[in-house]
Amino acid sequence: MTDPLRPGAKIGILGGGQLGRMLSVAASRLGFVTHIFEPAANPPAGQVAAQVTTASYDDTDALATFAAAVDVVTYEFENIPTAALDAIEAVRPIRPGRNALAISQDRIAEKDFLNQIGLKTAPYAAVLTLSELEAAIARIGAPAILKTTRLGYDGKGQARIMSPADAPAALAAMQGAPAVLEGFVHFSREVSVIGARGLDGSIACFDPGENVHEGGILRTTTVPARLTAAQRTDAVLIAAKILNALDYVGVMGVELFVTDAGLIVNEIAPRVHNSGHWTQNGCMIDQFEQHIRAIAGWPLGDGSRIADVVMENLIGDDVLRLPEIARTAAAIHLYGKAEAKSGRKMGHVNRIRAGK
Amino acid sequence: MTDPLRPGAKIGILGGGQLGRMLSVAASRLGFVTHIFEPAANPPAGQVAAQVTTASYDDTDALATFAAAVDVVTYEFENIPTAALDAIEAVRPIRPGRNALAISQDRIAEKDFLNQIGLKTAPYAAVLTLSELEAAIARIGAPAILKTTRLGYDGKGQARIMSPADAPAALAAMQGAPAVLEGFVHFSREVSVIGARGLDGSIACFDPGENVHEGGILRTTTVPARLTAAQRTDAVLIAAKILNALDYVGVMGVELFVTDAGLIVNEIAPRVHNSGHWTQNGCMIDQFEQHIRAIAGWPLGDGSRIADVVMENLIGDDVLRLPEIARTAAAIHLYGKAEAKSGRKMGHVNRIRAGK
Repeated sequence: MTDPLRPGAKIGILGGGQLGRMLSVAASRLGFVTHIFEPAANPPAGQVAAQVTTASYDDTDALATFAAAVDVVTYEFENIPTAALDAIEAVRPIRPGRNALAISQDRIAEKDFLNQIGLKTAPYAAVLTLSELEAAIARIGAPAILKTTRLGYDGKGQARIMSPADAPAALAAMQGAPAVLEGFVHFSREVSVIGARGLDGSIACFDPGENVHEGGILRTTTVPARLTAAQRTDAVLIAAKILNALDYVGVMGVELFVTDAGLIVNEIAPRVHNSGHWTQNGCMIDQFEQHIRAIAGWPLGDGSRIADVVMENLIGDDVLRLPEIARTAAAIHLYGKAEAKSGRKMGHVNRIRAGK
Repeated sequence: MTDPLRPGAKIGILGGGQLGRMLSVAASRLGFVTHIFEPAANPPAGQVAAQVTTASYDDTDALATFAAAVDVVTYEFENIPTAALDAIEAVRPIRPGRNALAISQDRIAEKDFLNQIGLKTAPYAAVLTLSELEAAIARIGAPAILKTTRLGYDGKGQARIMSPADAPAALAAMQGAPAVLEGFVHFSREVSVIGARGLDGSIACFDPGENVHEGGILRTTTVPARLTAAQRTDAVLIAAKILNALDYVGVMGVELFVTDAGLIVNEIAPRVHNSGHWTQNGCMIDQFEQHIRAIAGWPLGDGSRIADVVMENLIGDDVLRLPEIARTAAAIHLYGKAEAKSGRKMGHVNRIRAGK
């Protein structure tokens, strides 16, 4: 299927969280009808989708039925079980493709891939045992971070190692899961590039945004990022190299560290990305629509930045500030989640200043 | 109920067309859950709403059940039967309120109201019989337009009168319905103001847009409109006067003729309006979100214009140009309608230029 999807076509989305929700809205703007697959009941995305399938990722029958009911399948998160992907791919195309998913599901595979295509990453080493961890610390040095190779997000499954003495506790925190030790990178700031690649191989990147994290969770993204013209170009070239190497279709988030030795890739996410939420109010075509355009085989849209934006996440009790925020010049984006648990992303706010 | 609705609250929308669809998306952005009431099956708004009630406006039980399931009711069109409004209002508030609906459902009541508050309209006269029509033509002159007083939109229920000899045919075209003869206004252009009034009485207007019609249907809206500073101020003052006089809550479209004798009110629509679609790509807060904020009792948002925009409607077969439009720097908004009938609004396109 390489013809562009026509309006009225159905797009299946794996995952019913806020990213699926905003993808669904973008798809509707282009006349597509969306169908969400999500194990949890009453997903946020279901409030703005034509259909919801509530089933487990182990339920291959439900997955096959879901796939048969749509024209193409995409996803809002990368940790989809391989068997689920097999069940879907037997019926309908999955975009972005399997290789991007395989790489981003495994921190070691991801870093191996990035280095193979000539990009820089933090020094890293695979770790299963305490002796491997001690050897890795001896080679890479401390401080360093030990992370599970799979299923980590928002700072979960991570342990900081300040000295070799921290090794046993850090390894215990992995709860027996394969891990990777990542050396500490001395960076001045973290930026991210939201890149898109169409079915025809064309590439379009949004302006890099500058990220500030708190407690392992993204707090703000600011555009424009404080980058030199050379760094800005380099950031886009890095994203393009990754997209092309994976024969990628869709939007990808590429997090970069800005260092004295150039830009170093922190991690990639084969999906729309929290650090790209500013595009909803800073561009004519946002990351969600760009993703839908790509997976639908449409030409990529014009994602030129038309305003300076600061995106701020509303996490947990931050939503209690809503009445006050609503009185300010801010664009509010809430996710329709019932309960404001600590650390839970409840929404975000974009504040803009017109003119580039 | 004067407390602001909290995220998670339910908003009922009468009408499942494109306006209901875009209202639903805006409501979701603020964390509200939407419920569409629409007689026709598979309405465009249903694709992006949490719930749809398919029932007739005669079905007062269905209306009462619908009203009881939501926290506030709004609408995408003004021609809602009075009995339906009664059934809803017995259960939940309707915003904007009944008086705005009553006035906008009847062209004579509307013009009477506008003149009573000191605004200018075209000369007009109520017409039931041929002798009344002939007398009206004698007083108002020709060319003039005969319109049914109720249920007209997009040029339907209208007949042009170029000379007194056209009177019998024009009256026949009314099919026995009460009509109003409107004198021809010599105007240089038509502009419209999208105004909003909050539950607290605060008012915010979007920049006036300049409209071009073809065959009685809006073709394009361009912002900024070609207006002097005085006209621009006057346009906003007129809108504010109408909103205050009606104790209005929500967004209203006010169409104005620009004439040598000042601005003349063409008509008002107590709802989001096609000529306000440019706000989706020209402002941080668009007309749909502004409407939802108002009826939810939230503070109005910042609808400052951040770009020059040309909005073009995609009518009927215009959608066949989609593949070509998708390759240009344009924001596409499709309505999810299955069939592209002649004269049917299928979507619109916003083209922007950054910077005010």
